[in-house]
Amino acid sequence: MSETTEDIMSATYRALCAHGFADLTMQRIADETDRSKASLHYHYDTKEELLRAFLDYLLDDFESRLACEAADPDERLDTFVEAVFGPAEADDDGDFAVALLEIKARAPFSEPFRDRLVALDARMRETVAAAVRDGIEAGRYAEVDPDDVARFVVTAINGSHVREVALDESPAEARRLVEAYLDRTLDRRSEPEVPV
Amino acid sequence: MSETTEDIMSATYRALCAHGFADLTMQRIADETDRSKASLHYHYDTKEELLRAFLDYLLDDFESRLACEAADPDERLDTFVEAVFGPAEADDDGDFAVALLEIKARAPFSEPFRDRLVALDARMRETVAAAVRDGIEAGRYAEVDPDDVARFVVTAINGSHVREVALDESPAEARRLVEAYLDRTLDRRSEPEVPV
Repeated sequence: MSETTEDIMSATYRALCAHGFADLTMQRIADETDRSKASLHYHYDTKEELLRAFLDYLLDDFESRLACEAADPDERLDTFVEAVFGPAEADDDGDFAVALLEIKARAPFSEPFRDRLVALDARMRETVAAAVRDGIEAGRYAEVDPDDVARFVVTAINGSHVREVALDESPAEARRLVEAYLDRTLDRRSEPEVPV
Repeated sequence: MSETTEDIMSATYRALCAHGFADLTMQRIADETDRSKASLHYHYDTKEELLRAFLDYLLDDFESRLACEAADPDERLDTFVEAVFGPAEADDDGDFAVALLEIKARAPFSEPFRDRLVALDARMRETVAAAVRDGIEAGRYAEVDPDDVARFVVTAINGSHVREVALDESPAEARRLVEAYLDRTLDRRSEPEVPV
């Protein structure tokens, strides 16, 4: 990604946090950079086009946070949970969660938004399902349906997001319950059993 | 509830389904009734005031759908799941879910909206927790934390709502997983065991 793109994308992130999705304008994004609004329009014809690029950027960012070289399925699940629940930008304070929920609420009216949200969801579910599948094959996890477990975990994560925004609830509550669900459902132990 | 109130509330429901929350106006609500916009303002000073009343109306409606005389905890949990996932109005087609997610996304900017969403959430969690608690006391369910189970179930329901809107996924997927989670976590059986 070019420095210009990176610059515009992080300005979009900050503008979304500051103004929310409904009040986002090209001018407000430009105000978060050293660039003019005209310069932004040189790169992106419309606000819609810029926002589509921004959702692609989010997807890439999420993929890079998921990247886990480990073969160990426990480690891969932990990396996933941390990528989803771990602190985002330091100056965020939940503002981005608010903007992202506005974007999700707009998805029924925007095919390009929906496509990107569907892709992000598929990526999340695949990550969980693959780790669960490998854990089962290695004889480490209980014989469950990896796709069902993945769908339920991601559904709970979606719920955690809406609870953070609508009810001002800390995502730590959902994180604890998702981890307990994985431990219990997969019958995985936090420590290997040591013979006495 | 008076006939007038009932009339205005169901008009608000239809107007929300037709126009969404962002484009809702007093005129559009009046258009769904035999009344004038002025007559609506006689009952509710502002759109905000009408919407607060509408959220109270939703809460009451949900309470009445939860009402279950049964003492049996399984039956109470089934009534809850049906109230949450069962078909709403016949002409709905998911439009109301879209409007409700817009309202949730607005909650950080409206204390009265947030208060009502928090009350609805507490009511949902209490319903599940009470049934689980009674099932444990009767020796029918496994010894789990009723509040944790309730929170996880309601979080998954919140996730199902956002998935229906943002990803156009059928709530039937989440319903199946919530039911399987309850069966497994509570160790409840669909049929009583019959001695052979």
